[in-house]
Amino acid sequence: MKSIITLTTDFGLTDSYTGAMKGAMLSVNPETLPVDITHGIPPGDVTAGAMVLREAAQCYPPGTVHVGVVDPGVGGSRRPVLVETERYFFVGPDNGLFSLATEADPVKRVVELTKECFFRGAVSSTFHGRDIFAPVAAHLTLGMDPALFGRPVKGLVALKAPAPVKRGGCIYGRVVSIDAFGNVITNIKKGHLPGDADAVEATVAGVVLKGLRKTYASADPGELLLLINSSGHLEVASNGGSASKALGVEKGDKVTVRTR
Amino acid sequence: MKSIITLTTDFGLTDSYTGAMKGAMLSVNPETLPVDITHGIPPGDVTAGAMVLREAAQCYPPGTVHVGVVDPGVGGSRRPVLVETERYFFVGPDNGLFSLATEADPVKRVVELTKECFFRGAVSSTFHGRDIFAPVAAHLTLGMDPALFGRPVKGLVALKAPAPVKRGGCIYGRVVSIDAFGNVITNIKKGHLPGDADAVEATVAGVVLKGLRKTYASADPGELLLLINSSGHLEVASNGGSASKALGVEKGDKVTVRTR
Amino acid sequence: MKSIITLTTDFGLTDSYTGAMKGAMLSVNPETLPVDITHGIPPGDVTAGAMVLREAAQCYPPGTVHVGVVDPGVGGSRRPVLVETERYFFVGPDNGLFSLATEADPVKRVVELTKECFFRGAVSSTFHGRDIFAPVAAHLTLGMDPALFGRPVKGLVALKAPAPVKRGGCIYGRVVSIDAFGNVITNIKKGHLPGDADAVEATVAGVVLKGLRKTYASADPGELLLLINSSGHLEVASNGGSASKALGVEKGDKVTVRTR
Repeated sequence: MKSIITLTTDFGLTDSYTGAMKGAMLSVNPETLPVDITHGIPPGDVTAGAMVLREAAQCYPPGTVHVGVVDPGVGGSRRPVLVETERYFFVGPDNGLFSLATEADPVKRVVELTKECFFRGAVSSTFHGRDIFAPVAAHLTLGMDPALFGRPVKGLVALKAPAPVKRGGCIYGRVVSIDAFGNVITNIKKGHLPGDADAVEATVAGVVLKGLRKTYASADPGELLLLINSSGHLEVASNGGSASKALGVEKGDKVTVRTR
Repeated sequence: MKSIITLTTDFGLTDSYTGAMKGAMLSVNPETLPVDITHGIPPGDVTAGAMVLREAAQCYPPGTVHVGVVDPGVGGSRRPVLVETERYFFVGPDNGLFSLATEADPVKRVVELTKECFFRGAVSSTFHGRDIFAPVAAHLTLGMDPALFGRPVKGLVALKAPAPVKRGGCIYGRVVSIDAFGNVITNIKKGHLPGDADAVEATVAGVVLKGLRKTYASADPGELLLLINSSGHLEVASNGGSASKALGVEKGDKVTVRTR
Repeated sequence: MKSIITLTTDFGLTDSYTGAMKGAMLSVNPETLPVDITHGIPPGDVTAGAMVLREAAQCYPPGTVHVGVVDPGVGGSRRPVLVETERYFFVGPDNGLFSLATEADPVKRVVELTKECFFRGAVSSTFHGRDIFAPVAAHLTLGMDPALFGRPVKGLVALKAPAPVKRGGCIYGRVVSIDAFGNVITNIKKGHLPGDADAVEATVAGVVLKGLRKTYASADPGELLLLINSSGHLEVASNGGSASKALGVEKGDKVTVRTR
């Protein structure tokens, strides 16, 4: 079977960095398939990277190696790790980047990457993506035992992602991301809401929206709507437009749901 | 032979969506090769997506599966389809997205995707790219008969792309796209123009340009020029600069050609 | 072994161009693996393309074919070439694009691409990436002898990249690129500097910075720092921020190092 390595970084698409990482992988195992998830994580935004990995990683076949590099502490005290879960491998910095993807995919072991024989020649102190994570991921696709890459450690650094709060018939949530369409995605999950779709009433940026829709197209063009999106979260959208622009909403803003 | 699936979407490159689609493909057939054509179609711009597919799809080897997702009506009444042509398969929404690519590559059959056994677990109503189109495309690369995916339907929704009009020694056309270099691409084809390259005179944004050139470099640096581009269309360019910026021209603007 | 072709262009990611090139490669050899290095080179900026290729190309396994298309002179007098080096093949325009990557990887031969049987049907005069370079690269991955593609020529066009100047205890250098993080990368190499990291003092945009650090995280949040980056060059960075924005520095600006 072909071995797949995905890449999720904040490197952007204009520099040599992502190309260097893919080369470093292919130099170890020319049969591997590097697949870009995204290189558009905002610089240093570990939480945004963790959320993308939570959604995308689980779509891949078992055995896939997911490399994540959103690593503002590169070369410092954070640990370079390999995480083996029930279904996948994750390789990157232990700074919370993998803590959301592993919520639904239990961790079997965590190995701190200390065995330099699996690194790329002289390791720089600023580009562990190329020099440590890419070659380790590629060695994994050759079937090597995770234990060989270093020493077992306990647990992973966890993100403190804000959870919504229920109080007095209301759910107090937050905007956690805004996608390229301007859809406003909250941290309120389907399970938090009442079963009756018509009973949901959300307030965001002073605007009150009522009832969950199934699709964007069920609203009039430009109309704002609520729905449960493809990741199971409450989303504020606009049919054919940008809800984020229409509402002037940003990441971190409050969303309040009243459950009549 | 390796099986190739291309992706053309308006998802952008910062979210989890394209990574999720590629994972959904590889989960069905880990031997397939997902190839990005572009994810930079303007949100919901079906015509722009259709034009990119018209140019890029035809460069791929016969048997390639082209997945297109520019799908503002997702989950609504538009049909999810699989289109088999003389050379390729196209998978996506039946909203006109494939109507330009199939002008030069005759359609053999169209199948509405109804067989849920080929979909991805629980199908969301907002992300058919991941839940329907990606897994169907990957099943196709396993060699499955298109008839298995649903029921045959007649014809495809066609785009109403504006054609240039000939009247009184003039051709009245439009700017249909502006590329990343600022080249201004029109809907006027080589075949519409007189055979004598020197006899072509185009007016755009009040500026008159005379004669077709062969190359950008045949003009002076920064000079505006006309040429037939690599897709066979009349293009207004600037040697080493952006014709779009120099002229203040946008998509939809008029271009008039006088054929002396 | 799977054959790898990398792509480095200034085509951007919104048009059909990069998808067309990858299709043209796969049409010749469906077993090849196209790998994007970047398509985000600023339009026509041959030096920027050459610098990306210098950093990224060397990370790939021997035998990789690197296609570079930053080609403002397309269709004009510049030669389309195939460059065989000790480790790789480079295919593209002979305009300096490969002159930095080949500094550390000696050229064995240069072949001007004249054999049209290896080109794609009718060759356009504006898109040699699709019509010449992609199919030639793919034919190379089939194991064809470089000599078959045209006639041997001597030497490559070299870039006149500005080197730093040493004078009177100072090194006078330039900013040569600014990456997506806002890191300011200079043309001053590690070897130009004194061995004592604490002895380095750089002036950029009127700001004096002292001492080389090892990592971004060794500075306070937002603090400016100097380090030798992963390509071996002096870099001005800001821990968690954009040094370029903080200093108002652009490509081409002066950097002066005093070696006390």
